[in-house]
Amino acid sequence: MPRFVVLTSLFLLTASTLHAAQESAPTLIPQPAIEQASLLREQALNDNVAYAIIEGLTTEVGQRLAGSENDLKAREWMIAKFKALGFDKVWTEPVSYPKWVRRSESAEIVEPFAQPLVLTALGGSAATPVDGLTTEVVAFDSLDAMKAAEDYKVRGKIVYVGIPRMHALPDGRDYGPGSSVRVQGPELAAAKGAAAFLLRSVGSDENRLAHTGMTKFSDPAKAIPAAALSNPDADQLERILKRGKPVKIHLALDCGVEGRYTGANVIAEITGSRRPNEYFLTGGHLDSWDPGTGAIDDAAGVAITTAAANLIGQLPKRPARSIRVVAFANEESGLFGGFAYAAQHHLEIGKAVLGAESDGGADRILKVTASVKPEARGAIDQIAAALKPLGIEYDPAAGGSGGSDLSAVHAVGMAGLSLHQDTSRYFEWHHTANDTLDKVDPGQLRQNVAAYAVSMYLAAEAEGDFGSAPGAFATEKDSH
Amino acid sequence: MPRFVVLTSLFLLTASTLHAAQESAPTLIPQPAIEQASLLREQALNDNVAYAIIEGLTTEVGQRLAGSENDLKAREWMIAKFKALGFDKVWTEPVSYPKWVRRSESAEIVEPFAQPLVLTALGGSAATPVDGLTTEVVAFDSLDAMKAAEDYKVRGKIVYVGIPRMHALPDGRDYGPGSSVRVQGPELAAAKGAAAFLLRSVGSDENRLAHTGMTKFSDPAKAIPAAALSNPDADQLERILKRGKPVKIHLALDCGVEGRYTGANVIAEITGSRRPNEYFLTGGHLDSWDPGTGAIDDAAGVAITTAAANLIGQLPKRPARSIRVVAFANEESGLFGGFAYAAQHHLEIGKAVLGAESDGGADRILKVTASVKPEARGAIDQIAAALKPLGIEYDPAAGGSGGSDLSAVHAVGMAGLSLHQDTSRYFEWHHTANDTLDKVDPGQLRQNVAAYAVSMYLAAEAEGDFGSAPGAFATEKDSH
Repeated sequence: MPRFVVLTSLFLLTASTLHAAQESAPTLIPQPAIEQASLLREQALNDNVAYAIIEGLTTEVGQRLAGSENDLKAREWMIAKFKALGFDKVWTEPVSYPKWVRRSESAEIVEPFAQPLVLTALGGSAATPVDGLTTEVVAFDSLDAMKAAEDYKVRGKIVYVGIPRMHALPDGRDYGPGSSVRVQGPELAAAKGAAAFLLRSVGSDENRLAHTGMTKFSDPAKAIPAAALSNPDADQLERILKRGKPVKIHLALDCGVEGRYTGANVIAEITGSRRPNEYFLTGGHLDSWDPGTGAIDDAAGVAITTAAANLIGQLPKRPARSIRVVAFANEESGLFGGFAYAAQHHLEIGKAVLGAESDGGADRILKVTASVKPEARGAIDQIAAALKPLGIEYDPAAGGSGGSDLSAVHAVGMAGLSLHQDTSRYFEWHHTANDTLDKVDPGQLRQNVAAYAVSMYLAAEAEGDFGSAPGAFATEKDSH
Repeated sequence: MPRFVVLTSLFLLTASTLHAAQESAPTLIPQPAIEQASLLREQALNDNVAYAIIEGLTTEVGQRLAGSENDLKAREWMIAKFKALGFDKVWTEPVSYPKWVRRSESAEIVEPFAQPLVLTALGGSAATPVDGLTTEVVAFDSLDAMKAAEDYKVRGKIVYVGIPRMHALPDGRDYGPGSSVRVQGPELAAAKGAAAFLLRSVGSDENRLAHTGMTKFSDPAKAIPAAALSNPDADQLERILKRGKPVKIHLALDCGVEGRYTGANVIAEITGSRRPNEYFLTGGHLDSWDPGTGAIDDAAGVAITTAAANLIGQLPKRPARSIRVVAFANEESGLFGGFAYAAQHHLEIGKAVLGAESDGGADRILKVTASVKPEARGAIDQIAAALKPLGIEYDPAAGGSGGSDLSAVHAVGMAGLSLHQDTSRYFEWHHTANDTLDKVDPGQLRQNVAAYAVSMYLAAEAEGDFGSAPGAFATEKDSH
């Protein structure tokens, strides 16, 4: 299509969109787009680009701890990949954050029974003294019990919080309670004068591989050593504690914050045919924790969304709007890439008509939910209908922020579409050395690609918007 | 019973046994013993002594690498446990072997992509130079391919043998091919001038925990560094090798043989009522590899057989023969405890009327087989019938050495009964850090106790013997 026609249609359509929004006309997806999406869905189910991206990132780069040498390698790898796939635009936007470094970690029970302990420092943890610290353990079975304890019982001790072992559930709802202990526990223990904080890993497996993850110290100068024990090691410690004798642990963590680092969100776009400045926002996070190679968390998310956008880029005719894929920086230590994106784009957030990122592994999508303006619900119904042949249920009553990386973007006003994956297996491997390529099931991965390709394409072709506007979803309560 | 009566009956019964053997009269189990065994079976299914032994050994001692400090602790623990349970006799018999020590181990791919590798030194491995060695990898997909390679292709290199990943099977038949590569490969590579030997772990799991195990160097002075990669790390190395560029690995193993050590078999007996010098020989091995706590390999075996013998010891009336439980020393580095037992007892091996040890984990027993004299097959049929309610099949055509620790004892003439466990899960955890208490299913464990209690009791009550005699099974081909 010659350029002037594009510009003309753009003008007309933008005007009609504004008009529609003012009049509260329903947003709807034209039938030819529905038909095109159905072809796209079948194509995606035979496409191996996503698997190749995960294979490449995990094999040629490996772990991608934010701020590490591999952080830069991963960005270069991803930029090259976007270009090789033929995306129309590829660029980066800087993201700055404190750089946390892990050097070594070890621990053992020294009394009453000598037993080595498998653990891993939490992101944000301070180091112990060089030779480690050896001190008595005071144990609690919940964070509330620790909070209720008088300070003198905790002071100078290693606090252990033996949260219940996480269950493997498709909707991952058991992760929240455990991860909140991981995030909040160390700071609360530090305030009570604890020497260090240990918890049972937030993971549903029985492997002697500890689950790392971030913890929050509002004042990094007040950080204490904090680590997670593998589930069997937590069991071991609890059995020994139950024998009623004083338990001493030697803990040696060499880790901590080393200044600031500036990385980047790596962004690529398939440019839309008629409204190129409006875009579907998608992606995953490029960083990973360091024990594994970040295959399911979250090379998979980057790969799924890149492969889906790539399929749309291969169509004979582009959709009206653009598809923007963001490989976010440093999700793991606190959604830094997502916050940076929100900070940089919040004034023009209306251009991000709908957003859906992928950060729940590589297993199949079970459910779709959305947070959109009421007039766009019909279009979401249409997207849900197009996802149904993939075995995806639709819950019109629940909201959807678009996912972890996009939560900050949703908070500044982007309409969100959440594609909920089956996390039954995810939390066995999440944040451990076991997060490797062999955990990716290519068939389930392709189902994800199909779901994203369909969703992206239909939203990019929708007549009318989804309600993205500065502050549009500010009053929303629960949008996950 | 006064001593002279015992002696008299012993004389008469021994004479009748000899007579029976000469006359080829069938060995049979009296009906009252069958009824007693049936009660014992039900009792065992409600008995928690075995679980308590595994819990205690793994919690209060932990790993039990032969020759380590914990080797002695474990013997002291087991002696105390046998005494506390009220066994009639408890003693030790010395077992001497080269002491192999593991200090540290690490490795990483340095070219073309830097990637850490999870591996573990094999028992018997030599150390690398202190700073490790960095050299090119030459890869083979089988030991035969390595053997066929010209020496110059291997000389000075790190040999990697990427055996097929082991499948999880109830009968564990996939273990043999892999473990023979582990046992023989390093010595063969050393003979070709290799700098070091790596193989894919012999294990059916997808965890980043490597499976250790012994390797054989006939001349320890010619040992080279030898280690197993976890399955995901073997996958990673193979993917990188496939890219066709030279691959270099840095390998640092600090381990090796440190002189000799004298440990001991810990032996306990429930003394028989009428033929106390004849005994059913049972047990498991007290040593374990060091990454885990040796719960399934083989605290379980020691616990199952101890608990079964203990139940028999609690009966109002003892069976005719004794039950002898051996917690064998150093099975892992080459069946040293079993060989020591055979060496010490081979002249009187006829007293060990039948033997069955437990060294296949804690999951249920699926099948029973035996290697006995033909005239004793009827008694084995009776034992098999008493095991049937436990869901145990009987294969009368297959032999049975009695198990790994007893293979040397069987080889000098002990009749063997093999109780084959379901090893579908066993080889996921075997010889890794994952060999911990949480892998023990108490219900399946009790089924094992019941099967051993029934087998021990019936054999101890049998009228007639099972064919144990010096050299009795020397011509047997396959008795596993």
